[in-house]
Amino acid sequence: MNPREIAKLVGGELSGNGTAEIRSIAKPETAGEDQLAFVDDAGKFDGTSAGCLLVRPDFDSDVSCDVIRVKDPKFAFAVAARSLHPYLSRSGRHESAVISEDADVRASFIGAFVSIDAGTNVGEGTEIHDGSRIGRGVSIGKCTIIHANVAIYDNVAIGDNCVIHSGAVIGADGFGYVRGPEGYVQFPQIGAVVIEDNVEIGANTCVDRGALGETRIGEGTKIDNLVQVAHNVQIGKRVVIASQTGISGSASIGDDCVLAGQVGIADHVRLLPGTTIGAQSAVFPGKIVRPGVWCGTPVQPLDEYKRQNAMVKGIGRLREELREIRRRIGQNEP
Amino acid sequence: MNPREIAKLVGGELSGNGTAEIRSIAKPETAGEDQLAFVDDAGKFDGTSAGCLLVRPDFDSDVSCDVIRVKDPKFAFAVAARSLHPYLSRSGRHESAVISEDADVRASFIGAFVSIDAGTNVGEGTEIHDGSRIGRGVSIGKCTIIHANVAIYDNVAIGDNCVIHSGAVIGADGFGYVRGPEGYVQFPQIGAVVIEDNVEIGANTCVDRGALGETRIGEGTKIDNLVQVAHNVQIGKRVVIASQTGISGSASIGDDCVLAGQVGIADHVRLLPGTTIGAQSAVFPGKIVRPGVWCGTPVQPLDEYKRQNAMVKGIGRLREELREIRRRIGQNEP
Amino acid sequence: MNPREIAKLVGGELSGNGTAEIRSIAKPETAGEDQLAFVDDAGKFDGTSAGCLLVRPDFDSDVSCDVIRVKDPKFAFAVAARSLHPYLSRSGRHESAVISEDADVRASFIGAFVSIDAGTNVGEGTEIHDGSRIGRGVSIGKCTIIHANVAIYDNVAIGDNCVIHSGAVIGADGFGYVRGPEGYVQFPQIGAVVIEDNVEIGANTCVDRGALGETRIGEGTKIDNLVQVAHNVQIGKRVVIASQTGISGSASIGDDCVLAGQVGIADHVRLLPGTTIGAQSAVFPGKIVRPGVWCGTPVQPLDEYKRQNAMVKGIGRLREELREIRRRIGQNEP
Repeated sequence: MNPREIAKLVGGELSGNGTAEIRSIAKPETAGEDQLAFVDDAGKFDGTSAGCLLVRPDFDSDVSCDVIRVKDPKFAFAVAARSLHPYLSRSGRHESAVISEDADVRASFIGAFVSIDAGTNVGEGTEIHDGSRIGRGVSIGKCTIIHANVAIYDNVAIGDNCVIHSGAVIGADGFGYVRGPEGYVQFPQIGAVVIEDNVEIGANTCVDRGALGETRIGEGTKIDNLVQVAHNVQIGKRVVIASQTGISGSASIGDDCVLAGQVGIADHVRLLPGTTIGAQSAVFPGKIVRPGVWCGTPVQPLDEYKRQNAMVKGIGRLREELREIRRRIGQNEP
Repeated sequence: MNPREIAKLVGGELSGNGTAEIRSIAKPETAGEDQLAFVDDAGKFDGTSAGCLLVRPDFDSDVSCDVIRVKDPKFAFAVAARSLHPYLSRSGRHESAVISEDADVRASFIGAFVSIDAGTNVGEGTEIHDGSRIGRGVSIGKCTIIHANVAIYDNVAIGDNCVIHSGAVIGADGFGYVRGPEGYVQFPQIGAVVIEDNVEIGANTCVDRGALGETRIGEGTKIDNLVQVAHNVQIGKRVVIASQTGISGSASIGDDCVLAGQVGIADHVRLLPGTTIGAQSAVFPGKIVRPGVWCGTPVQPLDEYKRQNAMVKGIGRLREELREIRRRIGQNEP
Repeated sequence: MNPREIAKLVGGELSGNGTAEIRSIAKPETAGEDQLAFVDDAGKFDGTSAGCLLVRPDFDSDVSCDVIRVKDPKFAFAVAARSLHPYLSRSGRHESAVISEDADVRASFIGAFVSIDAGTNVGEGTEIHDGSRIGRGVSIGKCTIIHANVAIYDNVAIGDNCVIHSGAVIGADGFGYVRGPEGYVQFPQIGAVVIEDNVEIGANTCVDRGALGETRIGEGTKIDNLVQVAHNVQIGKRVVIASQTGISGSASIGDDCVLAGQVGIADHVRLLPGTTIGAQSAVFPGKIVRPGVWCGTPVQPLDEYKRQNAMVKGIGRLREELREIRRRIGQNEP
């Protein structure tokens, strides 16, 4: 691609002759003349040897390469990267794969040692990589990538353009038991999992099936590695969930929420759309959290969290002041 | 099944003619005439179209369907669900499985791409699903289900009626090193893992082998997804451990303990039987915790935890009061 | 081995005739006459029936067996254990393995259902166990053990003498997205992962590839189970990271750091060499942490953390004192 083509692709304004041959992407500080870089914060920009630079409209540093001005250079860079570094799609069907005769598999790629069970359908353009297991009655849409060694249990539905990373487990039994006279009996875990379009699920993340109803992950939601999504959780659209966060049974996470890493969401919590929860924070059972940024265990609004942390740090001074007052009024140590 | 049969199965008292055909289970609000539902909290009951309802003895709402009165409707529902939705057992032995000639495998089902190593025995009625690995010298009892893509290392013993979910890793080396002049040398991790009967282990959970002795999980214990059980941990009977909890080396968890999600148990901790630890709490190294409910980092009894949280929230007021006193006694700001 | 040979191996001083036949290792309290044990803390020693005992130079208990005096008995024990319980290496290449013709595989063992993709090279003495996936353009050194069901994505480099436990996922996409007008677009995740020599990686641990640059794990570093290492993280040499810890994007962990369990390291954090972070603690974004022991959320030096915890516990008394002062100066309740 040349800068002219990139500018067109990202809807930006080109300065320069636009004829350099751009083959790949890089950071400004390491980029060479056949590479594209971007500058988000001009204050941190320290020159580049890149062949083309994506910058904000008000960028005014003097650079020798072609420059494309665009409102959101990072977004433009991500868009251009998809053209410069397209996903290397796979095709073919490995002879070792075990595919039920009662499955409707149109996938463009089935890797070695894959197994696909009865009553399952897989859409066109979808890739299922080596060693992944697809259970009975599963539905997988088009152009979805299931990486290696994924386990998908029975009756899971996955949409189009999803990416499921290695080691993810979708549809295992939810964790629900009833205590009886002789120990625990499993509460029925016979529900489903529905994963809508454009969802990405990280490595070794677990999404349990619903107990009676379904567990659902909304369109465009992105989930990092090692996340736990329990039974009957409802996750909205365009939600971002960072690594090692756990969401307990029947919690609901509204559209456009952001959960940082190692967050704990207790059962039956409701995060209203647009809520952000800071790292390592916890939301206690049944709480309803309104939009804004929340931190701590249990969560507080970010301002309160900071104020309270400062107050805790100030306890020592409070103690000193109290001692001083006691001295003044002639009271002995208690 | 008809309500008469269900009443007999759960030891309940039937009101109604008991002849409806019940085919499945559901929640009261969505159930149809061929479904069984239960009501645990009559105050929240809002009518149902179910064909049969499990309720407490004192339930007095007016419903048109058959009603079965029983002491614990939720438990009865779980018991009935096992008959209405029996586990769909698998049978056969896939030709692709690689089973050592020196293994004694009576399992009712061996899936595709399973490998079972030498010196291992697997009991009758047990299922080992696609892509699972069973090491050398492993013993697996009867009617146990090993889901897909599980990895079981050498010298692990698993009892009867267990369920191991996908991605679980049983018997990896414990995490122990000794610092030497040229970096770390592994402390020997040559012990075993013993998992007793009726244990359930969640997806992607890890149970490490003992260093010299064994790691043991007691009868009827239920462990959720993404839990870490370190070397030499001793877990008692009927323990419940929620997702993302970590138990460090040589800790012991007494019978009937309950650990909520994201709990951290440090090394050599001893939880006495019947202890409950709240979510995201931590028990510090070597502590002995007596029965009751504990919360916080480090854990405190629940009452103290709540009182202390309230006090921390009250620091601001303390500061105000102190300022007021200073004013009264004519002391300037410090 | 006899005690004479063990003494020579560990550089210790033998007392006794040194002719007992030692076949295995054990704890002092359970060891028999053909076993080696060690005593690190003589104060806790309560006798042994071991055939040989590794002890500190000043050990003066009266024992009937051979004794080897050495500066660090635990380290000596670990060294001797490697000879008494050598790793049972595997050899051969299972016929079911799918190995690209365009891969250079010298490994001593390739298990069943392994797949190795094009452009990949694997060194001598390396073992790749059943069901592991090795992507394109991967480089694995000599004498490295990849346990069962590991997933290694494209363009990952792993050194010599490493151990990767089951379920680990190396090289999945980093978690980076840019919000656009129609939801999130992935920020390019096209970097690499480099794992240097003598690194051990626990079961179900995830190491993501760099976004543009690389994710690197330094020589001799040991990582426990269920750990998250995000894109572009730089981990130094001889670092120890316990279970369920998460390290966010672009963080750097200096040589000889120790991270306890369930720690959260936010993005762009820099731990200087020799820093220790206590369990469940969190380091906030961009912080630089100097050597020492740090605890809490956010981390404080251990002393301060303890002092502050004590102060928080003392708030109740502060309140009492304040009330007493109010009484004395005749002020009513506010």
